[in-house]
Amino acid sequence: MALYVYKFGGTSVGSVERIKAVAEKVKAAHDAGNQIVVVVSAMSGETNRLIALAKEMQAQPTERELDVVISTGEQVTVALLSMALNNIGCAACSYTGGQVKILTDSSHTKARILRIDEHNMRADLDNSKVVVVAGFQGVDEQGNITTLGRGGSDTTAVALAAALTADECHIYTDVDGVYTTDPRVEPKARRLDKITFEEMLEMASQGSKVLQIRSVEFAGKYNVPLRVLSSFTEGAGTLITYEESEVESALISGIAFNRDEAKLTISGVPDRPGIASKILGPIADANIEVDMIIQNIADDATTDFTFTVHRNDYQRAKTALELTCTELAAKKVTGDDGIVKVSIVGVGMRSHAGIANTMFQALAKEGINIRMISTSEIKISVVVDEKYLELAVRTLHAAFKLDQA
Amino acid sequence: MALYVYKFGGTSVGSVERIKAVAEKVKAAHDAGNQIVVVVSAMSGETNRLIALAKEMQAQPTERELDVVISTGEQVTVALLSMALNNIGCAACSYTGGQVKILTDSSHTKARILRIDEHNMRADLDNSKVVVVAGFQGVDEQGNITTLGRGGSDTTAVALAAALTADECHIYTDVDGVYTTDPRVEPKARRLDKITFEEMLEMASQGSKVLQIRSVEFAGKYNVPLRVLSSFTEGAGTLITYEESEVESALISGIAFNRDEAKLTISGVPDRPGIASKILGPIADANIEVDMIIQNIADDATTDFTFTVHRNDYQRAKTALELTCTELAAKKVTGDDGIVKVSIVGVGMRSHAGIANTMFQALAKEGINIRMISTSEIKISVVVDEKYLELAVRTLHAAFKLDQA
Repeated sequence: MALYVYKFGGTSVGSVERIKAVAEKVKAAHDAGNQIVVVVSAMSGETNRLIALAKEMQAQPTERELDVVISTGEQVTVALLSMALNNIGCAACSYTGGQVKILTDSSHTKARILRIDEHNMRADLDNSKVVVVAGFQGVDEQGNITTLGRGGSDTTAVALAAALTADECHIYTDVDGVYTTDPRVEPKARRLDKITFEEMLEMASQGSKVLQIRSVEFAGKYNVPLRVLSSFTEGAGTLITYEESEVESALISGIAFNRDEAKLTISGVPDRPGIASKILGPIADANIEVDMIIQNIADDATTDFTFTVHRNDYQRAKTALELTCTELAAKKVTGDDGIVKVSIVGVGMRSHAGIANTMFQALAKEGINIRMISTSEIKISVVVDEKYLELAVRTLHAAFKLDQA
Repeated sequence: MALYVYKFGGTSVGSVERIKAVAEKVKAAHDAGNQIVVVVSAMSGETNRLIALAKEMQAQPTERELDVVISTGEQVTVALLSMALNNIGCAACSYTGGQVKILTDSSHTKARILRIDEHNMRADLDNSKVVVVAGFQGVDEQGNITTLGRGGSDTTAVALAAALTADECHIYTDVDGVYTTDPRVEPKARRLDKITFEEMLEMASQGSKVLQIRSVEFAGKYNVPLRVLSSFTEGAGTLITYEESEVESALISGIAFNRDEAKLTISGVPDRPGIASKILGPIADANIEVDMIIQNIADDATTDFTFTVHRNDYQRAKTALELTCTELAAKKVTGDDGIVKVSIVGVGMRSHAGIANTMFQALAKEGINIRMISTSEIKISVVVDEKYLELAVRTLHAAFKLDQA
């Protein structure tokens, strides 16, 4: 007998028929002798409807009250799924975040889970009941309803799996696993049977939005085996795990990319200590997130400083940087909001030299000019003109033979 | 400084605009220096929408899960109203039934309130906050969400008023008070400034559905002054109170009626002890509610037994009674589903003789034949042919001079 935590997102429970299909899937696993905890999101569209209603009352809704409103979305789904399960003879019991209880801090709309009381769920599981838990929500020390922020249902599922030491946590989505890259860009992209947590983190943060990053971090931290599968088709999906040995043979696991980048350079900056914070301080103050950062020493006593931001923040960042340029008596600010970032990701590159060289040669052969380079332990990212995105992804996919198992 | 509990029903909070109007009304009372607790229902139509959704999942929804689904209706409204109040500078905080907490028994969909913890609300009131509480819902000892049944928001309001020893509990509805009779039947009907709890109970149980009966019982038991007013127009409404002295001068306070009655008679029943339960037992077993009951001794050793039921239950009751007729070797069963009940209600009649006579004479003068009579301490009911309903109500309204203050 294994204990599984299943998570179904808004699309998977988007209608009465789909909820009934989820119930059948859960019943089959339960009938096979497993203990099942199901985490569900609100029916697709419901959270947006509730937020719109709240904004009609108050342009910037009181966050505590917003959480009270939007948490009803998942509350409805857990009860409906429990009814669907009871209806087909599979005893089930629903739980709100507060009923579990999933204790969080008091940061409304973006709360973090502090502790999970497994007592009630365990009692129901031991009574052969399926436990259906509302994702995305919790309750703070004072009993206020909190939510974990968008995509928080993944985090709920992983946290429950950790608390219950589940055998696996299954995240059901509308894709059937994690791919070597986006199949819409490279049709030869291949589903990975396994991927490590670290690789998944790099893939996720680089634009492969299969899972919410926080849930992957959480799963890695508590060593919860995570499996991504499709709600709508059969298949084993992709297992995200620590078991590095089996995947070590592959040098590179996948290629991630991000279309929404823009780069900014401030050049001729007098090179003295503390200059980086002088440049990035005003950017942070403007609530703009910075992605890649590169600093080069120029030939004189000045330095060039380059960073990338989300394309939506480009103009604001440029304005702030031009002010800094004047203050620091730097030479000039240049920028480009027509760039993209392409990354190769793989734990294998740790122990293999020459990966970077293979990457750069493959791109050069296609005449793709590299504008920036940044590396980490298990990732190499390059910035290129946006017109080269698809070509770069396909070239690298072939260069690292990712279409071959 | 007075403490008021206000209750607004589904129609009063049926749209964004109406919730904002409620917020203005509440703010005005709060600005005038009062402490305000507001109880709200789900936005009109929402509870029915949720029940329909549940029935799509399961023809007879698991009651525990049904409560989880439908309680979200009020949860949304309390948060929206709190936002509307915060938006106009009136600090407010929402509470679900579980957050208050309103402890109930575990009878899902028809729970009864056992205890109310006033601690959290009192702290907010002392901090000059308006407290907004979800009506109709509570939580049992085990933390399961319960609901009080349709109309239960009135009960919530009265129970909170009792727990907080509020100065008055205001029930805002779509009518501006309690009338001497239904103005749609008698245009001369007059709004009563005051009515006693007992009269209100008789009026309510006789078809004047301004308030839920349980809430009136509750208010009477805990001596909570209850006021019925309109959400949409100004006015003092009707105060429901124990202060009998001031209303004593009026003999009759109002005329109630019920269109949905049917009567059944079993005649020639051998008259022996226990016969009533032999007759009514099978009716109760069939879950049919009996209203009036009359038994007459006939001239021989047999008795005639007559009772009324809801018109929808007439055929089922008749079938059951015919079976009983054969078993008891009674003479026959007769019935009539074309009757109505008209009642005069007033605490004044306790101490005044001749009220019944005035009633019977007035009806006789109009040629209205009385088919059944039943009396209580503060009420006289007659059953007449349904065609006489309006005439009977208007005749009695005039006979007891109810159009005059």
